[in-house]
Amino acid sequence: MRDFTKDHQWLSINTATVKKQWSLDKIIDECAKRNIRVISPWRDQVAAVGIDKIAKQLKSHSIQLSGYCRGGFYPASDSKGIQAAHDDNRLAIDEAKKLNAPCLVLVVGSLPGALQGRAQYKDVELARSQVFDGIAKALEYAVQVGMPLAIEPLHPMQAAERACINTTEHALDICDALDPQRTGHLGIALDVYHTWWDPKLKQQIQRAGKDRLLAFHVCDWLTPTRDLLNDRGMMGDGIIEIQKIRGWVEAAGYDQFSEVEIFSDLNWWNKPGEEVLDTCIARHLSSV
Amino acid sequence: MRDFTKDHQWLSINTATVKKQWSLDKIIDECAKRNIRVISPWRDQVAAVGIDKIAKQLKSHSIQLSGYCRGGFYPASDSKGIQAAHDDNRLAIDEAKKLNAPCLVLVVGSLPGALQGRAQYKDVELARSQVFDGIAKALEYAVQVGMPLAIEPLHPMQAAERACINTTEHALDICDALDPQRTGHLGIALDVYHTWWDPKLKQQIQRAGKDRLLAFHVCDWLTPTRDLLNDRGMMGDGIIEIQKIRGWVEAAGYDQFSEVEIFSDLNWWNKPGEEVLDTCIARHLSSV
Repeated sequence: MRDFTKDHQWLSINTATVKKQWSLDKIIDECAKRNIRVISPWRDQVAAVGIDKIAKQLKSHSIQLSGYCRGGFYPASDSKGIQAAHDDNRLAIDEAKKLNAPCLVLVVGSLPGALQGRAQYKDVELARSQVFDGIAKALEYAVQVGMPLAIEPLHPMQAAERACINTTEHALDICDALDPQRTGHLGIALDVYHTWWDPKLKQQIQRAGKDRLLAFHVCDWLTPTRDLLNDRGMMGDGIIEIQKIRGWVEAAGYDQFSEVEIFSDLNWWNKPGEEVLDTCIARHLSSV
Repeated sequence: MRDFTKDHQWLSINTATVKKQWSLDKIIDECAKRNIRVISPWRDQVAAVGIDKIAKQLKSHSIQLSGYCRGGFYPASDSKGIQAAHDDNRLAIDEAKKLNAPCLVLVVGSLPGALQGRAQYKDVELARSQVFDGIAKALEYAVQVGMPLAIEPLHPMQAAERACINTTEHALDICDALDPQRTGHLGIALDVYHTWWDPKLKQQIQRAGKDRLLAFHVCDWLTPTRDLLNDRGMMGDGIIEIQKIRGWVEAAGYDQFSEVEIFSDLNWWNKPGEEVLDTCIARHLSSV
C-alpha cells in the first residue's frame, strides 16, 4: 500500500467539493497553487466557463483529470427521453475526450421524474433494464473513441432518484455482461461513501481487479447524517475505515488517485475555498 | 396472493406509527374500535403503561401481536457492555413471551456510540462479529423458552448507528449459520422500506422461504426523503412496489400479517391518531 503521509501527489479534487465557493477556472488556479496536480470536474462547471478555456487552462498548469462527471441518467418514460439520454451521453464522452479524462463517471439514473418528486413509474427493474441498455449503447461509442466508462454504484438511499445500481456486485455483474473480455473500456468508480456499509465490499473489490477499478473516491460518513445528499464529511471526521478500503483497492491493483468528493451544504460549502482545499490536503496525509 | 381489497383482517399496526399521539393503552383501544386485531408494540411503550396491564388489555380485546419491538443492539466497546446487551435481550425475550408475540424483532445494532454521534470504534466487521455472537447467545435462550428471533435487515443508511445487517442476504447467511436445520427459531423481519432497493430481493425472499419469513413490514419511500430515520411515507404515497413484494413474500409461503410501521416526524406524527389509523386501513386495502 502506498504511503500517503509524506505528500499529496496522489490526491485529486473532485471540483464539486468547492463548487459553491468558486467557478472552475478559479478552482483550477487554487489547485495549481497548492500543487494539486489532478482534478475531476463536473460538466456544468466546465460549461459555465467554456470547455476550450478549461482545456487550455488545464494544459498550461499541467493539471490532469482523474475522471469526468458525469454521464448516465439513462431511464426515461418514453423513447424520446431514452434517445435524449443517449445523445447527451455521447456529448459527455466527447467532452471527456477533449479534456483527456481517464474515464467518464456514470451516475446511471433511476425512476424517471423521481428526482423532481414525481416518479413517472415505480418499476425499478424496468429502470435497471433501461440502464443496462443505455450503458450498452454508450459503450459502443466509448469503445470507438477510446473513453472508458466507470459505473458508480451509489448508496441505496439514492436508489429512487439518482442511481438504481447500488452495490459493487451489481455494477460488476453489468461489467461482466457487457465487457466479458475486460478490455478496460468498462469498469467502476468506487466511492467509499456509497459502499463502506457493504458486507461484500472486500470480496467485490477483489473481483473487480485492476481492469475494472477506474476511480477511487473518498470522503467520510458522519453520525448523524442530516441530509441524504449533501451532508458528507471530510476524511477523518466520520466512521469510514478509509485506509482499510484503500488497502483492499490497492491490493487489487489500483495505483491511481484518491479523489476527494464532498457535498456539504451544512459545513464545507460554507467555508472559504482555501480552507477546504488545505483541509483536503491535510486529511489526505492523515486519514486516506 | 391474498386479496387485501375487501377487509383489513391481515393488517397489523406497529404502534410506533402513532406513538407521538397516544400511549399504548389508548392505541390498543383505538385499534380495537376499528377492528384492527393485531399490533406490534415497542418495549418503551409497554413499559410506560406496565406490561401486566397491557397483557390484560390485549386479552380482553382479543388483540394479538405480529411481533415485539425489539431486541438487538449487541455491539459494545467492552465486555461489560456485551453482557448488558445480553441481559437486556433476555428480558426482551421474556416480555415477548409474556405478551404471546410470535417473534422478537432484532434491530441488531452497529458501531457502539455512533447513535450518540461518538462511535467508540469504526470497525464494522468487529460490530458484525459481535452481532453474530450476540444473536447466537440470545438464540440459546430463545430456543429454551420458545420465542422465535426475527433479524431485521435495516436500510444501509442505518449501517453506522442502528444495524450492521443491511441486506436480506446477509441476514439469511446468519440464519443459515446459526440455525441450519431451519427450526423456525431464527428468521427475518422483512420491511419493504429497508429492502425495496435491493437487486437481489426477490431471490433472497425465495431463499428465505416460509420458515425464515417471520414478519412483513410495510410503509413507503418518499421522494424526496428529508430525514434518514423519520420521514417514512404512507403506503401509496411513495415509490415502493409494495404489492409486487408482497406477491414474492406470499409465493415463498408467508401467510401472516402486513405490519404498518411509519416513523414520520414531518407528517403522520403531527396528525390526529384517528386519522392515521383510518388512513392505514384505507391504504392497506388500496396499496398493500
